[in-house]
Amino acid sequence: MKFSRVTVPTLKEKPAEAEITSHELLLRAGMMRSVAAGVYTLLPLGCLALEKVEDIVRDEMNSAGALEVVLPSLHPSEPWITSGRWFAYGPEMMRIKDRAGRDFCLGPTAEELITSTVGRTAPSYRDLPVNLYQIQTKFRDEIRPRFGLLRGREFRMKDAYSFHADEDDLEDTYRRMYEAYSAVARRCSLETRVVEASTGLIGGDVSHEFMVVSEVGEDVLVYCEECDYGANAELERHEPGPRFGGEPGSLEEVGTPGMTTIEEVSGFLDTTTAGVVKCVLYVVAGDALAAFVPGHREVSEAKLARALGTDEFHVMRDDERELFPAVTPGFTGPVGLSGVRVLFDSELEGAGGLVCGANRVDFHYRGAEEGRDFTAEPVADIAGAVEGDRCIRCSGRLSLARGIEIGHIFKLGTKYTSSLKVDFTDREGVLRPIIMGTYGIGTSRILQTVVEQHNDDGGIRWPKAVAPLPVEIIVVAPERSEQSEAALRLERELAELGCQVLVDDREASPGVKFNDADLVGLPVQVVAGKKLAQGNVDIKTRYTGDRREVSLESASGEVERALAEAP
Amino acid sequence: MKFSRVTVPTLKEKPAEAEITSHELLLRAGMMRSVAAGVYTLLPLGCLALEKVEDIVRDEMNSAGALEVVLPSLHPSEPWITSGRWFAYGPEMMRIKDRAGRDFCLGPTAEELITSTVGRTAPSYRDLPVNLYQIQTKFRDEIRPRFGLLRGREFRMKDAYSFHADEDDLEDTYRRMYEAYSAVARRCSLETRVVEASTGLIGGDVSHEFMVVSEVGEDVLVYCEECDYGANAELERHEPGPRFGGEPGSLEEVGTPGMTTIEEVSGFLDTTTAGVVKCVLYVVAGDALAAFVPGHREVSEAKLARALGTDEFHVMRDDERELFPAVTPGFTGPVGLSGVRVLFDSELEGAGGLVCGANRVDFHYRGAEEGRDFTAEPVADIAGAVEGDRCIRCSGRLSLARGIEIGHIFKLGTKYTSSLKVDFTDREGVLRPIIMGTYGIGTSRILQTVVEQHNDDGGIRWPKAVAPLPVEIIVVAPERSEQSEAALRLERELAELGCQVLVDDREASPGVKFNDADLVGLPVQVVAGKKLAQGNVDIKTRYTGDRREVSLESASGEVERALAEAP
Repeated sequence: MKFSRVTVPTLKEKPAEAEITSHELLLRAGMMRSVAAGVYTLLPLGCLALEKVEDIVRDEMNSAGALEVVLPSLHPSEPWITSGRWFAYGPEMMRIKDRAGRDFCLGPTAEELITSTVGRTAPSYRDLPVNLYQIQTKFRDEIRPRFGLLRGREFRMKDAYSFHADEDDLEDTYRRMYEAYSAVARRCSLETRVVEASTGLIGGDVSHEFMVVSEVGEDVLVYCEECDYGANAELERHEPGPRFGGEPGSLEEVGTPGMTTIEEVSGFLDTTTAGVVKCVLYVVAGDALAAFVPGHREVSEAKLARALGTDEFHVMRDDERELFPAVTPGFTGPVGLSGVRVLFDSELEGAGGLVCGANRVDFHYRGAEEGRDFTAEPVADIAGAVEGDRCIRCSGRLSLARGIEIGHIFKLGTKYTSSLKVDFTDREGVLRPIIMGTYGIGTSRILQTVVEQHNDDGGIRWPKAVAPLPVEIIVVAPERSEQSEAALRLERELAELGCQVLVDDREASPGVKFNDADLVGLPVQVVAGKKLAQGNVDIKTRYTGDRREVSLESASGEVERALAEAP
Repeated sequence: MKFSRVTVPTLKEKPAEAEITSHELLLRAGMMRSVAAGVYTLLPLGCLALEKVEDIVRDEMNSAGALEVVLPSLHPSEPWITSGRWFAYGPEMMRIKDRAGRDFCLGPTAEELITSTVGRTAPSYRDLPVNLYQIQTKFRDEIRPRFGLLRGREFRMKDAYSFHADEDDLEDTYRRMYEAYSAVARRCSLETRVVEASTGLIGGDVSHEFMVVSEVGEDVLVYCEECDYGANAELERHEPGPRFGGEPGSLEEVGTPGMTTIEEVSGFLDTTTAGVVKCVLYVVAGDALAAFVPGHREVSEAKLARALGTDEFHVMRDDERELFPAVTPGFTGPVGLSGVRVLFDSELEGAGGLVCGANRVDFHYRGAEEGRDFTAEPVADIAGAVEGDRCIRCSGRLSLARGIEIGHIFKLGTKYTSSLKVDFTDREGVLRPIIMGTYGIGTSRILQTVVEQHNDDGGIRWPKAVAPLPVEIIVVAPERSEQSEAALRLERELAELGCQVLVDDREASPGVKFNDADLVGLPVQVVAGKKLAQGNVDIKTRYTGDRREVSLESASGEVERALAEAP
């Protein structure tokens, strides 16, 4: 494969559209080009890398006993209306009418479609389990597409759907898919943490996300440094902390002029941030809600939504304050508060020596004690975790990190089979709804995550399992016949060993070629240059930077060895 | 792989939706299910067969020097507007607005998109040629989807686009793609005829269609029985025939009461159908047009469109007749006709002894002679070919046949690069528009065409290159351990030889299993049944029906041999 084609249109400068390293590198290394916001073309090298990822996914799916199918992208609206998701999905679902005016969507996921298809085969317990998957282009009209393939509007994913006669059988397949996803990540050189996650619009009771820890991740995850507990921050549970606050004492009102932040108040009153009761004011269905959490924590809106049973709320806006005279923004506290709905984080139960707002501008209380000066009722787990919290399983230290979600698996139960009336006949001849699981992994997202995790100042450092090609030969001066002939010979020898090669035979300066080779980042580089006068070439392992000079005769064997040793 | 999953939901009865054999068989053999009109799910065996086809296509494309890319399905409207095709494409193009109201289409083809992408790399002559392809889901909102995957609204195709500095280089790639398409058809066991075709909405000067001769085909092709000339009927040219008609004589008006068809008139007046001048009345831009062709031919509307320079015309409807009193429907002839636009097929030039309408109800002329009684002017090639016409190249006999178009290749010239202003820098440093070719082949259509061409009363007879799997083992009585163990052993031995097997281990009658095995049509069947008492199994080649009894010990080797011999 020759570099001297538009195959690899490398760029010297960082494109303006790139916000993060992997996005920049995929563009600069000529792997892809943007077509519209969140819509990309993968050029030949990007396509080859995606194929490597998808081949790994396919291999692991087949090993897990799943069978590949091809589902359409055009989904008729009917089963989506029946399941209730036609309306539950907002503008992220792309919808289209056909020429006869019938409604379709470009399926963002396919539970309804596959459930209807399997249902039409009228299965019996003998036909179960079934596990069907596809690797397909998906569409999601993100309000803010960004980060290249990480949050695109058109992307590639593998989605699988399993069907079972009972929970135990679902558990068995779920476990296999869990292992298969772990294997995919491992083979793609991605370190993952598997965390408990909320099931959202997909539904079901249990789900796990496969997270790659990365500062560019859009999710926050909480994990134990000692056991394997981990959860999305939206769902994490931690041990209740010590009862925060200062020494017991009597309630005292103190002036705190203009001090509305936890830091200002705790500093002024010489207590910890944890000793200050934080109040966040929300508007829920037209009413004010004062949510109280320890001052070193944030309110978790995902937890709040679960506690309230709705996600229809928002933080009170400045222009709404006059609608709710019962609260004193910046100085709202639980002592003596009335005329407003309240909700306490469970960690405030039994706490004493607290600082809290005095419901009077420029005043706080100190020495407040739950049970004596106010009652933490109603109470719920509504606060997020902080670094150093204790694990609910083993009391180990919890850490927080940002993560890129590459996969998500769900135990669905009968959510779709009940609404779509898809039953199987059990051993006794009784019709019962099939029990389902659903499993998604983003293949184009994995591609970019690999680049995000494996790069250096020079460019991409492809792990060999997902590298577009294993080897690049740099012909330093292609007009010199000994160099171009050596490259040709080595390319041929490597082809015989089943090893495909990118040959940089461009008329360009050696510096440009060396830089591009590092940027494109194939695992092994061979330099056919001046050393051929002594019959030698240089071999460089991109990941480690190790080089060695070897004879042209031994070069193909040495390339194989370097590849075997490369990450 | 076990049959006892919804993998292969075979059907005994012909589904009502199936109009042709291949559509019926793909449904009955459990290879696919319909989701909406023209929208299908491929179940595991259908998906495996599609993968085989696409692997062959990918292999031939790579051999032809094309590089795979992934283009998006969502195309922004801008380049389509610039090329003029946003409006030229009618309702067949599916269009969608994103949440911000921007227009996109689901690309039915990708000339605009790929041209823009390649253009942004600002190529020089050194970067050319480039040949990029993708294998992708495509959308076309057919007004009348039918015949399963042959005319679907969502389907799979490979599309390729090549870019060149000059015509010779385009010719070189065009030839390679021609060979690659021929190789794909051959490897898929499809006999094709390559015919000259019109370029339609894609554009360009030269194009060739790859046609599989089949009575269910929607195109008509004309081909020479002696040389390799062939053309889509829309475009064919044939030698002008002999001057049809009867003996020379004088013009005579004869009564032909109520006779308005060529057959009635030629029978009554004892001449050949070729000796009657056929008149077809059209309405073109609000005016009547009388088109005259020899009576044994049809007017070719594609040729008529080219002669008129527009395709905005239609056959005159009954309710339009009173608008055009100058013509006498059923009795319109060229002699003495005035007040109406006429167009003659070139074969009428110099013809004599003709029968034609007398422009008076219930009367015809006989003995009419061109040049004496009327003048064939203006004249053009507007008549279609008939069986037995003579080849324009070698005067061989022409045949007509219906064909399924599986591929179409085009020399585009600079149609897109001119309108989208995509230039390259030539050797002299001058900017010139890139010259393009475009090449499409329908992979899901090939899949169904294979089934249409390879079946018998029992079901599908997969050629081995595209069979979902090579072998089925039928376990006649799975509850008998010697049978299920023999199947397991053979499955394992074949797996070691790299040969995947479908095992029918269902609790069903032997008849059901034998019928399903023929229906599903894998190339080699092995029957593990009663003969195992003697240590033997039966091996059957599905295509030929040949059977032989072999020992279980030798079975895996015998299966390999049968496979090697199978078509």
